[in-house]
Amino acid sequence: MAGKSWEDLCFFESPSLIVRKSGQAQQDGAGMTDAGDITEVREDDAYALDNRILSEVRGAITAGDGARISDSLSQLHAADIADLLEQIDDAVRSDMLRLAPDVIDGEVLSELDEGLREDVIALLPQEALGEALRDLESDDVVDLLEDLEEPQQEVLLSALDDADRAAVERALSYPEFSAGRLMQREVVLAPQHWTVGDAIDHMRAHDDLPEDFYHIILVDPGMHPTGYVTLGKLMGSPRATRLDTIVEDSFRTIPVDQDEGDVAYAFNQYHLISAPVVDGDGRLVGVITIDDAMAVLDEEHEEDILRLAGVGEGSLSDKVIETTRQRLPWLAVNLVTAIAASLVIAQFEDAIAQIVALAVLMPIVASMGGNAGTQSLTVAVRAIATRDLTGSNVWRVIRREVLVGLVNGAIFAVIMGIVGIAWFGLPMLGVVIAIAMVVNLVMAGLAGIVIPVVLDRIGVDPALASGAFVTTVTDVVGFFAFLGLAVVLLL
Amino acid sequence: MAGKSWEDLCFFESPSLIVRKSGQAQQDGAGMTDAGDITEVREDDAYALDNRILSEVRGAITAGDGARISDSLSQLHAADIADLLEQIDDAVRSDMLRLAPDVIDGEVLSELDEGLREDVIALLPQEALGEALRDLESDDVVDLLEDLEEPQQEVLLSALDDADRAAVERALSYPEFSAGRLMQREVVLAPQHWTVGDAIDHMRAHDDLPEDFYHIILVDPGMHPTGYVTLGKLMGSPRATRLDTIVEDSFRTIPVDQDEGDVAYAFNQYHLISAPVVDGDGRLVGVITIDDAMAVLDEEHEEDILRLAGVGEGSLSDKVIETTRQRLPWLAVNLVTAIAASLVIAQFEDAIAQIVALAVLMPIVASMGGNAGTQSLTVAVRAIATRDLTGSNVWRVIRREVLVGLVNGAIFAVIMGIVGIAWFGLPMLGVVIAIAMVVNLVMAGLAGIVIPVVLDRIGVDPALASGAFVTTVTDVVGFFAFLGLAVVLLL
Repeated sequence: MAGKSWEDLCFFESPSLIVRKSGQAQQDGAGMTDAGDITEVREDDAYALDNRILSEVRGAITAGDGARISDSLSQLHAADIADLLEQIDDAVRSDMLRLAPDVIDGEVLSELDEGLREDVIALLPQEALGEALRDLESDDVVDLLEDLEEPQQEVLLSALDDADRAAVERALSYPEFSAGRLMQREVVLAPQHWTVGDAIDHMRAHDDLPEDFYHIILVDPGMHPTGYVTLGKLMGSPRATRLDTIVEDSFRTIPVDQDEGDVAYAFNQYHLISAPVVDGDGRLVGVITIDDAMAVLDEEHEEDILRLAGVGEGSLSDKVIETTRQRLPWLAVNLVTAIAASLVIAQFEDAIAQIVALAVLMPIVASMGGNAGTQSLTVAVRAIATRDLTGSNVWRVIRREVLVGLVNGAIFAVIMGIVGIAWFGLPMLGVVIAIAMVVNLVMAGLAGIVIPVVLDRIGVDPALASGAFVTTVTDVVGFFAFLGLAVVLLL
Repeated sequence: MAGKSWEDLCFFESPSLIVRKSGQAQQDGAGMTDAGDITEVREDDAYALDNRILSEVRGAITAGDGARISDSLSQLHAADIADLLEQIDDAVRSDMLRLAPDVIDGEVLSELDEGLREDVIALLPQEALGEALRDLESDDVVDLLEDLEEPQQEVLLSALDDADRAAVERALSYPEFSAGRLMQREVVLAPQHWTVGDAIDHMRAHDDLPEDFYHIILVDPGMHPTGYVTLGKLMGSPRATRLDTIVEDSFRTIPVDQDEGDVAYAFNQYHLISAPVVDGDGRLVGVITIDDAMAVLDEEHEEDILRLAGVGEGSLSDKVIETTRQRLPWLAVNLVTAIAASLVIAQFEDAIAQIVALAVLMPIVASMGGNAGTQSLTVAVRAIATRDLTGSNVWRVIRREVLVGLVNGAIFAVIMGIVGIAWFGLPMLGVVIAIAMVVNLVMAGLAGIVIPVVLDRIGVDPALASGAFVTTVTDVVGFFAFLGLAVVLLL
């Protein structure tokens, strides 16, 4: 193997296509697995926690054997240990931490769900905590500290040595959710006039390089970043090459006060691997790497999904009281919406008393409008988040949503018209529900796009608030159009 | 600057904290911007398309000046050119492509929304297309080809030279959405017994290294990957160090047939930067890098959000007919649900005819249940997607959701009980709506968790189907509990 040339090694091609048989069978069988026991959820999953390790750990906890707990968990990645801690019951977890506090290292703490992190920190002895923190890079300590309450922050800060504490406190002075909190301060940089040879010699002479770095950042004498060179390019270039002749096109700097959501967007949009962070004068202050950006992207998505559903924050490890408190405000908003709709219905009590069929059919119109509105608003909220919905196409998108509402409204108008006539034998009732359906689906399309756009424009998160407004519109319009038309055409 | 030691350069610390003033003002003022014109959406956004460039391009198109179009767009990143193409009208876009087909290079094609990509490819002259493809790495060509219809695939394949075409066809032989489609075949590897010096010398002698690589993968004589070394670690280690003594702990291989969603999960969970891909016999066949995994993570999230809202696929550049067709099936499912609820109401026509207040209040109970159910199911669907909801905690989560439903149900029961009595002066009506509220919110919590878990267990995507089932439960239970109790207690 050692004799093979690099030509062969670098551009290696596999001899033939061999599809893994076990995986194939698993995929084909996915639809046919036994649905009998819901506790077996996702056991066949590629990265689900291994049930065998779970039972081993449970056994060791019951037996009070701390060494066996540590031993079982030593096979797992910190992220998986954190998942395990999230999945076991509170009582089991505190037994486990009492028996084997050493399983919680800094990485496990970083991976833990925020809600649970405070509990775990409170359960750990002071010396174990200090030990755990000392393994971490300063940006991970910041990430860990910023979500904690003041007294717990103090406890953790006092466990750090002076230099680390100063670095962490400096990072915490940047606004929350800003690039300054995300970045690491350890930067590998070089004057822009250096050659490849200069850079390699200096790096090789230096024995304390950061753990992970992918680029060398070039700076001018005023410490302004002017480009970057990938380590791969550095390896592949002649020693005499000037660094500033082999910089990457993708170079972009990130302002230190930029929102972390915008940072994640930039990494995703421009396929960045790392990016220098600059202060207001354009001087280098740190670097952000793609793994941090990926974590932010993941959190932002999570937040959007939960907000769209009216959950706000919230995770599986929250307790009943917390969960109730998170969901209550949204249900309260919905109650106001629902009462508004009821007030509309109340205006038509006489009509309903005369034709009870109206009460039977009216929820259909409102429900179809609510669903169509949710479809439009979800597309709009996503498009705003991904910067695809802008001033230049907003009118076109509004026109499209209204037309889609019109076409789908017409289709369901015909269906419900026929159902209405067949069910109650009143041709005019069919006409009423058909017209109301078209009106409500057009309104749903219009509200579903205009409401999120306007909310975004006035600085309110459209993911959070659009749902309530759109549902109010489709409920009120749905009931009013249907019952109002009934009064005009049927009575 | 050149005289500064690397100690200073690598672990550079900024002299002081300077928060950028312009950004600060922008953030503080966000809530107060003028909401007058919705076409001004997100103009103040960090990465929104520059309106000035948009108008320049529009002007050049109107003037029929192809050179000016190319010139204006040359300042933009390919991803931004793709966004611009997505945002302009169809007619403007075809004018633009006719005048300046050279603005579409391979990267722009890769970045384009799938729906639009086919249109753009159809508009481009054959030679421009061939030119565009030749810039791309083979994994990007695969990504581009796999979404196209058969005849367009043929057109593109014939534009490639023989070696590239063979590589692309081999990649296409892996299952869709598998690691095999994501990976690139260009791998930098080394025998595991090599030293740092061997690796550096060989890399520096090789003048055709891949564009981006972050690790050297170590293999045994049977081509099984045994670890990897980061380029940074390589730079910082003495020449005599054996590579297998400085491998990373995070090393993991990816099976070539693994689902791309699982690949993205692994990158996010284990903070991978790149990972070797192996065939069924554990032999190296390629490498996946974090930027590809990040793109998949983004797509999967997008899909989840759209599926939860019953939109399925769908993007802003889809036409009215496509959009209508995408949304119609979900609305049809909802119509069935709504009719089922109406059938329940129809059983209580006599009761409604006697007390019309029932018709006024009944949508409130159903609506609150629907919202609470959506909250629970969204949390459940997310937890299933992130592998946080497993056999070991499913019963605890079910218990929690039911308790949350009970507590919130009780709170809103008191509120609606009082509202019901105050509004209609019937104390018993207050009792009826209060009990129905508790029953429906408990059912909502239960259905919201059990339905997604069971769907996942039987191999149906819970994001896609949970909503319809949960809403059916909360509508039917809501109307039945409220109207049924009214018959028992009020008549």
